[in-house]
Amino acid sequence: MREVNTLPRMHPTEADEPARYPRPADLELIPLDRPPTPDRLRFELTAGLARPDGALYGGTGAAVSVMAMESATQRDALWMVTQFIAQAHVGETLDVQVETLAMGGRIAQLRVTGTVGDRVIFCSIGATAHPRPEGLTGQYLPMPLVSPPDESGPMPFGPGSGEGREMAFTRRLEFRQATYATDQPAGCLALWARLDDVGDLTRAGVAYLADMVPPAIARAAGKVGGGFSLDNSLRFADVPSAEWILLDLRGELATNGYGHGSFTAWTPDGVLVATGSQTASMAHLFDANEPHPWTQRR
Amino acid sequence: MREVNTLPRMHPTEADEPARYPRPADLELIPLDRPPTPDRLRFELTAGLARPDGALYGGTGAAVSVMAMESATQRDALWMVTQFIAQAHVGETLDVQVETLAMGGRIAQLRVTGTVGDRVIFCSIGATAHPRPEGLTGQYLPMPLVSPPDESGPMPFGPGSGEGREMAFTRRLEFRQATYATDQPAGCLALWARLDDVGDLTRAGVAYLADMVPPAIARAAGKVGGGFSLDNSLRFADVPSAEWILLDLRGELATNGYGHGSFTAWTPDGVLVATGSQTASMAHLFDANEPHPWTQRR
Repeated sequence: MREVNTLPRMHPTEADEPARYPRPADLELIPLDRPPTPDRLRFELTAGLARPDGALYGGTGAAVSVMAMESATQRDALWMVTQFIAQAHVGETLDVQVETLAMGGRIAQLRVTGTVGDRVIFCSIGATAHPRPEGLTGQYLPMPLVSPPDESGPMPFGPGSGEGREMAFTRRLEFRQATYATDQPAGCLALWARLDDVGDLTRAGVAYLADMVPPAIARAAGKVGGGFSLDNSLRFADVPSAEWILLDLRGELATNGYGHGSFTAWTPDGVLVATGSQTASMAHLFDANEPHPWTQRR
Repeated sequence: MREVNTLPRMHPTEADEPARYPRPADLELIPLDRPPTPDRLRFELTAGLARPDGALYGGTGAAVSVMAMESATQRDALWMVTQFIAQAHVGETLDVQVETLAMGGRIAQLRVTGTVGDRVIFCSIGATAHPRPEGLTGQYLPMPLVSPPDESGPMPFGPGSGEGREMAFTRRLEFRQATYATDQPAGCLALWARLDDVGDLTRAGVAYLADMVPPAIARAAGKVGGGFSLDNSLRFADVPSAEWILLDLRGELATNGYGHGSFTAWTPDGVLVATGSQTASMAHLFDANEPHPWTQRR
């Protein structure tokens, strides 16, 4: 096989144009070890970016992949998917390498590999793009009618619950479970999500918040709990200034222990900022009235 | 960066176990040049696997990626996404190389690169898996109520229209546009799809049929036409024997000329066999009453 990382690499930014990416708000969320080069960035996995068990939180892998693609091309992420391969642990430093597979005038096609030493932790593929003037813009789905953040409570289980709020990967985020105003299929779960003490919401910020499909699959099956995400797939629109976003999650199906689901992400005033989907190994399912070993086992 | 394709590779099949993949039906759809090795297959891009302009049809890239992942691991595909990087043309031979990024007892994590000579044509990531005994199985969405295949007509535009039926990439497939029995958002498009003269429907066959989100985005915007898919993302359940599948497509949003949408895929008797999503560059939009240059420009 040819080595795609030896492709001739075009330089996306003019020398006299200041770099716009990584975005300052993204650096608040995931501080980098040193200034990134166009094709590489490094960060230390701190407890605030990890799951309670000290392993890499999926949203961190997805968010840093967005940052890497945007930094390499100085363009906004259009879509991307991150696949979780192996675990990294708190205290380890991740190298995130970008391969530019194609650099068009508008669309750049990218592949990202996150490693610790010689272990592949995650890989991502996706595209960034310059806007096309007069290109099609619109949103074609109605926002679900749900209770606003102020009238929504903690999740009954998991990272948005009272107990979960203490856990490591919730330090920079908050979830509240909204109530739908209309009947929904069993697998629908509406969560308000926000980042604590981070500036403007960005595509990377949405990716960080959006690793929540597994609880929707559990809910669809009449259970609580979740599972281990195998991937995190996102498609982006422009993200206006907003504190809260609504994740309208949908557990869609499960087959032989693996679940699939999707979501749309909305600002409170109804702007659709992203869509996404995930597959998860549904390893942690409990009955709602069963004492749940989340903090021990997750 | 470390070279992930030099990872030690485990051998997924026992020596005395006959290979189940690639599936015979998939070889009918996409004949291989020679017997595949565990990490590589080759096929010639024929007119029947290409778009009318002689370039690789997106569904072919997605289907052959499923075949490659399943052949390399002798497990069913669980989810995968194919990113379209550059064009291949009729008469060229594609090399499809699989890298095994992780080989667990149940889940295998894979990366696929399709090349012609030194040009990267597509790349894919995804997972295959052995079933988990007693693992969660269920479907949590209602099938939409639509007209059956026999009472559904050709698409008014594009590859499923009368004119489109003559075009190269429709040789092995047929689309019929169904009518919803209930009100739907503007971007919903229900298509019955089937393969001509191909045996059992498989995951690769579903991937081959499912490259149809762009017309749903066009429809959402009150237009006809489509665009160029940047990727094709699929999540699979078991696929029972069926001739027709229903693609319930949803154009969700567009931003600066790029559109996003999703779909669910159903057998006629209501089994949810796959979900998926795509992003497209919406380059070919026309008014419904405008003479459309599809055959010239697509």
